Amino acid sequence: MRFLIPLISSSITSGHYRIISRLLSAHSTKPQRSTLPPFFNCQPPSMAASEESLRKALAEKQSAVEAHGNAVRALKAAKASKPEIDAAIEALNSLKLEKSSIEKQLQAAVSGSDGDGALSREAFRQAAVNTLERRLFYIPSFKIYRGVAGLYDYGPPGCAVKSNVLAFWRQHFVLEENMLEVDCPCVTPEVVLKASGHVDKFTDLMVKDEKTGTCYRADHLLKDFCNEKLQKDLTISAEKAAELKHVLATLDDLSAEALGAKIKEYGITAPDTKNPLSDPYPFNLMFQTSIGPSGLSPGYMRPETAQGIFVNFKDLYYYNGNKLPFAAAQIGQAFRNEISPRQGLLRVREFTLAEIEHFVDPEDKSHPKYSEVVDLEFLMFPREEQMCGQSAKKIRLGDAVSKGTVNNETLGYFIGRVYLFLTRLGIDKDRLRFRQHLANEMAHYAADCWDAEIECSYGWIECVGIADRSAYDLRAHSDKSGVPLVAAEKFSEPREVEKLVIAPVKKELGLAFKGSQKNVVEALEAMNEKEALEMKTALESKGEVEFYVCTLGKNVPIKKNMVSISKEKKKEHQRVFTPSVIEPSFGIGRIIYCLFEHSFYTRPSKTGDEQLNVFRFPPLVAPIKCTVFPLVQNQQYEDVAKVISKSLTTAGISHKIDITGTSIGKRYARTDELGVPFAITVDSTKDVTIRERDSKLQVRVSVEEAALVVKSVTDGLRTWEDVWEKYPHHTSGSADD
Amino acid sequence: MRFLIPLISSSITSGHYRIISRLLSAHSTKPQRSTLPPFFNCQPPSMAASEESLRKALAEKQSAVEAHGNAVRALKAAKASKPEIDAAIEALNSLKLEKSSIEKQLQAAVSGSDGDGALSREAFRQAAVNTLERRLFYIPSFKIYRGVAGLYDYGPPGCAVKSNVLAFWRQHFVLEENMLEVDCPCVTPEVVLKASGHVDKFTDLMVKDEKTGTCYRADHLLKDFCNEKLQKDLTISAEKAAELKHVLATLDDLSAEALGAKIKEYGITAPDTKNPLSDPYPFNLMFQTSIGPSGLSPGYMRPETAQGIFVNFKDLYYYNGNKLPFAAAQIGQAFRNEISPRQGLLRVREFTLAEIEHFVDPEDKSHPKYSEVVDLEFLMFPREEQMCGQSAKKIRLGDAVSKGTVNNETLGYFIGRVYLFLTRLGIDKDRLRFRQHLANEMAHYAADCWDAEIECSYGWIECVGIADRSAYDLRAHSDKSGVPLVAAEKFSEPREVEKLVIAPVKKELGLAFKGSQKNVVEALEAMNEKEALEMKTALESKGEVEFYVCTLGKNVPIKKNMVSISKEKKKEHQRVFTPSVIEPSFGIGRIIYCLFEHSFYTRPSKTGDEQLNVFRFPPLVAPIKCTVFPLVQNQQYEDVAKVISKSLTTAGISHKIDITGTSIGKRYARTDELGVPFAITVDSTKDVTIRERDSKLQVRVSVEEAALVVKSVTDGLRTWEDVWEKYPHHTSGSADD
Repeated sequence: MRFLIPLISSSITSGHYRIISRLLSAHSTKPQRSTLPPFFNCQPPSMAASEESLRKALAEKQSAVEAHGNAVRALKAAKASKPEIDAAIEALNSLKLEKSSIEKQLQAAVSGSDGDGALSREAFRQAAVNTLERRLFYIPSFKIYRGVAGLYDYGPPGCAVKSNVLAFWRQHFVLEENMLEVDCPCVTPEVVLKASGHVDKFTDLMVKDEKTGTCYRADHLLKDFCNEKLQKDLTISAEKAAELKHVLATLDDLSAEALGAKIKEYGITAPDTKNPLSDPYPFNLMFQTSIGPSGLSPGYMRPETAQGIFVNFKDLYYYNGNKLPFAAAQIGQAFRNEISPRQGLLRVREFTLAEIEHFVDPEDKSHPKYSEVVDLEFLMFPREEQMCGQSAKKIRLGDAVSKGTVNNETLGYFIGRVYLFLTRLGIDKDRLRFRQHLANEMAHYAADCWDAEIECSYGWIECVGIADRSAYDLRAHSDKSGVPLVAAEKFSEPREVEKLVIAPVKKELGLAFKGSQKNVVEALEAMNEKEALEMKTALESKGEVEFYVCTLGKNVPIKKNMVSISKEKKKEHQRVFTPSVIEPSFGIGRIIYCLFEHSFYTRPSKTGDEQLNVFRFPPLVAPIKCTVFPLVQNQQYEDVAKVISKSLTTAGISHKIDITGTSIGKRYARTDELGVPFAITVDSTKDVTIRERDSKLQVRVSVEEAALVVKSVTDGLRTWEDVWEKYPHHTSGSADD
Repeated sequence: MRFLIPLISSSITSGHYRIISRLLSAHSTKPQRSTLPPFFNCQPPSMAASEESLRKALAEKQSAVEAHGNAVRALKAAKASKPEIDAAIEALNSLKLEKSSIEKQLQAAVSGSDGDGALSREAFRQAAVNTLERRLFYIPSFKIYRGVAGLYDYGPPGCAVKSNVLAFWRQHFVLEENMLEVDCPCVTPEVVLKASGHVDKFTDLMVKDEKTGTCYRADHLLKDFCNEKLQKDLTISAEKAAELKHVLATLDDLSAEALGAKIKEYGITAPDTKNPLSDPYPFNLMFQTSIGPSGLSPGYMRPETAQGIFVNFKDLYYYNGNKLPFAAAQIGQAFRNEISPRQGLLRVREFTLAEIEHFVDPEDKSHPKYSEVVDLEFLMFPREEQMCGQSAKKIRLGDAVSKGTVNNETLGYFIGRVYLFLTRLGIDKDRLRFRQHLANEMAHYAADCWDAEIECSYGWIECVGIADRSAYDLRAHSDKSGVPLVAAEKFSEPREVEKLVIAPVKKELGLAFKGSQKNVVEALEAMNEKEALEMKTALESKGEVEFYVCTLGKNVPIKKNMVSISKEKKKEHQRVFTPSVIEPSFGIGRIIYCLFEHSFYTRPSKTGDEQLNVFRFPPLVAPIKCTVFPLVQNQQYEDVAKVISKSLTTAGISHKIDITGTSIGKRYARTDELGVPFAITVDSTKDVTIRERDSKLQVRVSVEEAALVVKSVTDGLRTWEDVWEKYPHHTSGSADD
């Protein structure tokens, strides 16, 4: 159960969804991660039941203790006999013991049955983050000026990991799928983000400390209050606990008013000052600016990269030879002016997104390479399982698609490709699941939506969103810009189709409605087939109908001579339609943070007196592939080290040469902490040793071969096991000392 | 002479310099590209002299024509004889012919002696840009919404070229030099840019159309006016021409007032409306925004990436084992809210910078790898040559450094590395020069500064700035943040040094100055050695001196008992100093645009009835390395094409497969236009042909080998010439038809 209440609920990778969630349901930029849904269509999970019965048992025991306490006091007052009083006290103590035992059980139940687990997760994270910050994987930006919340720099090793991840992303998606990569600016004029909905809807609800003006996210305060109450206050009734859980589950559906009412009801105050809070109001999360010197052209820093692709659809479709399907991709910075960023790299104000927009005919969502992923099996968490409070299960992708759990082949194909991408980076497949959005999380137009969630010390984190967004985005920009963003399927021979023709008679309408003629004409032309045929029938039978013109806000009488409605047969040479878009959207910083956690471990030093930190990055993402050490300070060895360094550079292998006199063990420990997979130690002028980071095993290789051996493994042409089999082992004591 | 007046004067790559140029001289964000310096220390170039004498000759001839015309009229009025009148008219006509000939010569002289050259440059650019935009190398951003000036998207081929250029930059600089790459956010808090000087000084002077409010860059209007007058109005006197040229030369030194006065004097009005203009006033070029919801934390989109490195100096120095020299690097977006962007990709509001900050001991600017570049020879344009109006000359880098033309080895090393980088990308070495900044262009603290300028149809464009900025930036951030950004040189054994000790006697100063004591103490401690020793002497002889305390704004009397000044010998274990920084800064978009122009050419089609466009990109930067075509539509050939495509993907070679029925010649033309270097044509199931783009030569290679042959050439392991030698030639008629 514990992972069902998300430790983090956010969605840097699903801006579209976020917008629409708001169109559907009040204000919230977060996906509705209500994993305790407002209604259960099957039995609630047993753990919740046991928590409820424990709360009841505790309340009963508390009453019994009080009653018995009174009884003891009464006996004492009545000066009862000592044995009688002693017996009563003994019974009271026994009741107290029972109460205390129930308290412990309840405590364990509310803290997800592993209070210890939470503690150890916290300690693990602290160790990992300490290492990451100390070795400059990432650091708070502008530190010498005391930093800015939600902004981080990648230092040298972090920056190298990031560029390795992005290079692999390009190889795995853009190159292998022949995608059209584009690169659009971050500065975006208002009209684009008005069309996409971000200007009006990309908001979070905020409350202000009424005295200091400090801002907080309203839902965060309410969530923190509920969680705190549930976990720390064992005296609340089972009913109260259920209520708080319901609030948590429906948090994302709450309107500003409802959220404000709850904050008042629970007496929630500003966390730092205990001052009263303002009513919640929406705050737009885009960084606003002004384009050009006039001050008259508002612009924003893009909240996602996708819009740059949508507005270029027409050109890209032409570039692709007017053929569907095709995918466009973009890697770039995106910006969200978070109200109160927390959780390190997971919720930041500027981040790198990698987004794919795969355009496809809505009538054919098959994928030519689907067969390559059909047999993959991994943790999936379909809607139904979430509703039943079950957990993610291993499912064969092909089964999920054929049963209709995953809406279509193309969506399934990308889910499979994302799985391969993440696991090849080094994400642990047992801590990776694909969670389907619940019905109330999804936009009304979306066909289906799955998040790749990775488990880390903060819980399950949404790192990739994979959504079938139908034709929504292209239609929005077509409407706003007046430029049709459509595709056409040419028929091999013309097809006869029956088409409804609505022909308003402008002369008659002009006489009847004068200045309002245009509104009436537009309303008539906008009728759908059903409305038009009903009007046709009515006009034929009655000669006149009342017709509602929404732009006039009233009914007008339409006579038979004012409009001709008919069905005509036409020959068509092509079908023109708005393509559907399937969008895999990657939060690169989140993936990298989870990768850091999945790669981190500690092991005792040789002497056992300290714990050494290691990142088990695969060579693909390791920031530095290799270090080169002369065993001792010695000109000859240093010269050999330089020769090897030169070959590594030529081979394009990033490496570090360390000629300090530090002990070899310390030098290994230093590079293990950076996740360097291989170390070449120079202890002769002919042969050198190559040590593998995790096994600490060493082979002997000639100076000439050293760089090539490392290259072949880091390029994935062979494994360390191959190397271990081929070359003589270095056994003269571990060099780690 | 013509290239000496820059067609573009800007400096997206030298923000630091720009700021300082303003500290030195009024308002302008442009480098002082005054290549006609305000003073000549040698003979002015002959071309200018000829222009001047032509203007004089023209004025004389004009007077002669007028005088002679009057004479003819006088003869006619006096009814002179026909032969007499005819002879006079003939003489007049001959004078007019002479005048017209001088006009032509002058016209040629003022348009840089090649009016035709300007025309053909314009036509060349039009052809290149048409191809670039049509094939989506780049396109105006948000086109369906009518775009935003100064914002461009890279479409698929442009985006691929850009990522190839950046990948090579990483290989050539970061990897080969073991630089520390970092990745910092674009959103930057005000305090950082206050310290760097951008908040106060990063401005351009702007004027407004007083009726419509349209904004213009004041210096652009004045420059356009002067150029127009000089080139189109042949009647202006030699004196007037000299004046206009002086204005152009000193444009960047003009204050707001002086610029405004010139605009008034010349009667310059708004170009579109002819409305009067406002006085010039500074406009800050940074995009401003607000960080967080409070509205109280102003921030900006960074105007350069360098500041992110400077503020991290302390951590990076530690990461580098507290050793100098080392270099940090960053690639990322930067933003400048230009007043009126023009010239396509060359002056944009958002662009990619790649910057290196090489930190070095100011007392030792040697470079260990200097010998690797010392023999390079290329076009250099030292300060002296510019002052003499000469042009750039081929100089051996080693000579330029040893003669002191280039200030130091490290600066020279980077100039050499930049030369190698640009020419390997495909920049024509004959249209690349390194121009030294003139004394008045450089910041007072800068030791030396060179720009890599590339000639394109817009003139010589500054694409890389390479500056020795001394300790300026680190000091500015040390001062503002209070965090010392320094390095230390540990002595092998302690050194004895004589140090000045100023010890204010606080008790006496307190009695004398009460509340102002602190100001006086600080002023005393801030004295430099000379001032302190003068005070010591004065106090010893006179017992009292007047001392100016700037924070009080007045003199105070200092008595002998108020301060002790002495020289003491101390043992020091290290030398603490602020490192110098040498900064190569690359405007990636500008480099790419110049590369596009240098790579573009046209050649006649086989039938000779049209010109075909080709980009001669080296494989390193080509957006797609290879195309695969079945010669005719045929399942067998298509299957072979797919097999080859798969091998190319595995080999990491970006390629395109084209199975349309279009003629092979058309398909070649289509890919030549994208600069694809190799085409594999499948015309059997065993062997295929590989065609090279520029020579159109073809070899026959087995299906199995095809991908590897292409890979070996694109990876630079062998050349096309090697391939041509090794494999049988395909001669059965050119397939280009």
